[in-house]
Amino acid sequence: MKNFDINEDPHRRYNPLINEWVLVSPHRAKRPWQGQNETVASDVLPEYDPTCYLCPGNLRANGMTNPDYEASFVFENDFAALKQEKIFFENSTKETFFKAKPERGISRVVCFSPKHNLTLPEMTIDGIKDIIQTWQKEYIDLGKVDYINYVQIFENKGSVMGCSNPHPHGQIWAQSSLPTEVEKTQNNLKTYDDLHQSNLLQDYLQEELKLDERIVIENTHFVALVPFWAIWPYETMIISKRHFGKITDFTSDETTAFATILKQLTIKYDNLFETSFPYSSGIHQAPTDGESHPEWQFHMHFYPPLLRSATVKKFMVGYEMLGESQRDITPEKSASILKAISDTHYKNK
Amino acid sequence: MKNFDINEDPHRRYNPLINEWVLVSPHRAKRPWQGQNETVASDVLPEYDPTCYLCPGNLRANGMTNPDYEASFVFENDFAALKQEKIFFENSTKETFFKAKPERGISRVVCFSPKHNLTLPEMTIDGIKDIIQTWQKEYIDLGKVDYINYVQIFENKGSVMGCSNPHPHGQIWAQSSLPTEVEKTQNNLKTYDDLHQSNLLQDYLQEELKLDERIVIENTHFVALVPFWAIWPYETMIISKRHFGKITDFTSDETTAFATILKQLTIKYDNLFETSFPYSSGIHQAPTDGESHPEWQFHMHFYPPLLRSATVKKFMVGYEMLGESQRDITPEKSASILKAISDTHYKNK
Ligand SMILES: O=P(O)(O)O[C@H]1O[C@H](CO)[C@@H](O)[C@H](O)[C@H]1O
Ligand SMILES: O=P(O)(O)O[C@H]1O[C@H](CO)[C@@H](O)[C@H](O)[C@H]1O
Repeated sequence: MKNFDINEDPHRRYNPLINEWVLVSPHRAKRPWQGQNETVASDVLPEYDPTCYLCPGNLRANGMTNPDYEASFVFENDFAALKQEKIFFENSTKETFFKAKPERGISRVVCFSPKHNLTLPEMTIDGIKDIIQTWQKEYIDLGKVDYINYVQIFENKGSVMGCSNPHPHGQIWAQSSLPTEVEKTQNNLKTYDDLHQSNLLQDYLQEELKLDERIVIENTHFVALVPFWAIWPYETMIISKRHFGKITDFTSDETTAFATILKQLTIKYDNLFETSFPYSSGIHQAPTDGESHPEWQFHMHFYPPLLRSATVKKFMVGYEMLGESQRDITPEKSASILKAISDTHYKNK
Repeated sequence: MKNFDINEDPHRRYNPLINEWVLVSPHRAKRPWQGQNETVASDVLPEYDPTCYLCPGNLRANGMTNPDYEASFVFENDFAALKQEKIFFENSTKETFFKAKPERGISRVVCFSPKHNLTLPEMTIDGIKDIIQTWQKEYIDLGKVDYINYVQIFENKGSVMGCSNPHPHGQIWAQSSLPTEVEKTQNNLKTYDDLHQSNLLQDYLQEELKLDERIVIENTHFVALVPFWAIWPYETMIISKRHFGKITDFTSDETTAFATILKQLTIKYDNLFETSFPYSSGIHQAPTDGESHPEWQFHMHFYPPLLRSATVKKFMVGYEMLGESQRDITPEKSASILKAISDTHYKNK
């Protein structure tokens, strides 16, 4: 009988953050692709687009005019999925099948830069630091609102990720409840903390640094790696080397180091297929429910869909929706590809 | 304070099958769409395509020639995500962060019809019954293999669902382990059974039939409804009225009734936006691990991505990946739209 070779044989890997498995099929990367090709966004966008509702000085759908902002700029989402209104609701504990409860929240849009064509990898470190400071300010301001217990900071980049405007921007959805994925993560961090008096992600990071098989970038304060249990082909996670729970815990050195690793990682992504690399990214951090949450560890996820080229993505469909997430290329292979890629943006070569 | 109105106010709903929540934003359906539009597949495909690797008599990638099949036709997937080979592996219980284990399995492709252009809604009831019999045969044959404990039957339809060939076909992935989503479902069915000595989905179905707010189609033996906790805009589930665990439990009347509801539901889907409606669908049923599994209830899920038109889909991206699934239109609204739609295929009008 053949011995198990994790680089060759189909296998499942366990994700301790959410207590779920992923199916890995290393040999399957070779199959030919005859399916849908994504359209690639034009590389040549203007610095200012008079029809863009995010550019400075332009009119938005709700009739407001954007100010002539010079760095990042935040406004309430004109088509928010959450509303601030307080709703009267009598909790019924009897319901098994029709459990529903109102959810209050605030949705904001964060423009990263006044320039319509300036995405993270092409911004200056100072420009990225300004975004981080905006995220910190929003985490504090939204977190202070009495009914807000969690602040989800995220970015959808690229039309393939449902992003409707190429103007570089992210979003913040802040709400009363812990969303499903965050609650799973919190529960697993808590269980680990109770069991080991230690942080799951910090202990994991130590092991990863020792093995050095999935590390993409390391600087003084942060590491970007492809998690052992990654589901997307080039999924990565950024973890701080120091144990802290939230973005407002950054020292000023950490702010610079985080801006630097964000820039380097997104440059590598753009260079991978020489395209403005699509992804959804977001920060998982401590809730703003007033508790101390020592079990939490600040980290950021990148979920990019591209698999083989700028136009061929991985589809998480039938088997993945009904069974479990499945990947073709191994995390080790993805990490080694990303690690080897240049830190200089392809447009500047 | 305003009273909670489930048709108007943002809220979360609970899914007892997988113990997860979904965020519902009824008011958000109104936002304008400026994002990516999907391409619509041509409605006029030939009955036979000489370049299609699924058409009868044609050559496949691995050098095999398809027989001149006349109804459904099954073959091993040439680019299987799973392999049958037995792998030697020493289980280590020490691993916290690097848990992996080999997974054995068999992947098959099921062509639904020799005709390149004949999808489910346009097939005859007899043609669909033939597919159901093929699914039954495969469930039995694959289930008999000693290391196969679960058989996942599914279909990816449409290029937007990663389907690389319009020739109507589904897939079967059979494997040693229970995939993540199936395991969640099984655990929740089991807990309910232990607690109530009754089946969760049967009890749910009774409530739904009484309320009649989310029922799309009902016949003597099956019901198609939009689950209270649906995440996709026009997601549906087919449940049998009789409590049984697997497709091989069908009586011959149930086979006809299931074929009929499959045809009706997919006709309604095609009629919704007058397009060949994309979706991933699949059957959840009892494992083939040799246990009796009285907690199981046969059901079939349909996860279709379209939201507003044949070209505008719902993107499950940033917030959904990092937080939780989110929907705009309420399940009740979707159900009433689907219910009202004609049972005659738009091409035959
Ligand atoms: O097997 P296919 O049709 O080539 O591939 C499609 O379905 C599979 C099973 O859901 C997915 O893993 C693939 O990402 C998708 O493109
Ligand atoms: O808010 P946007 O950018 O209009 O919309 C995009 O991101 C949202 C949050 O992930 C999703 O709910 C939408 O499906 C997606 O199209």
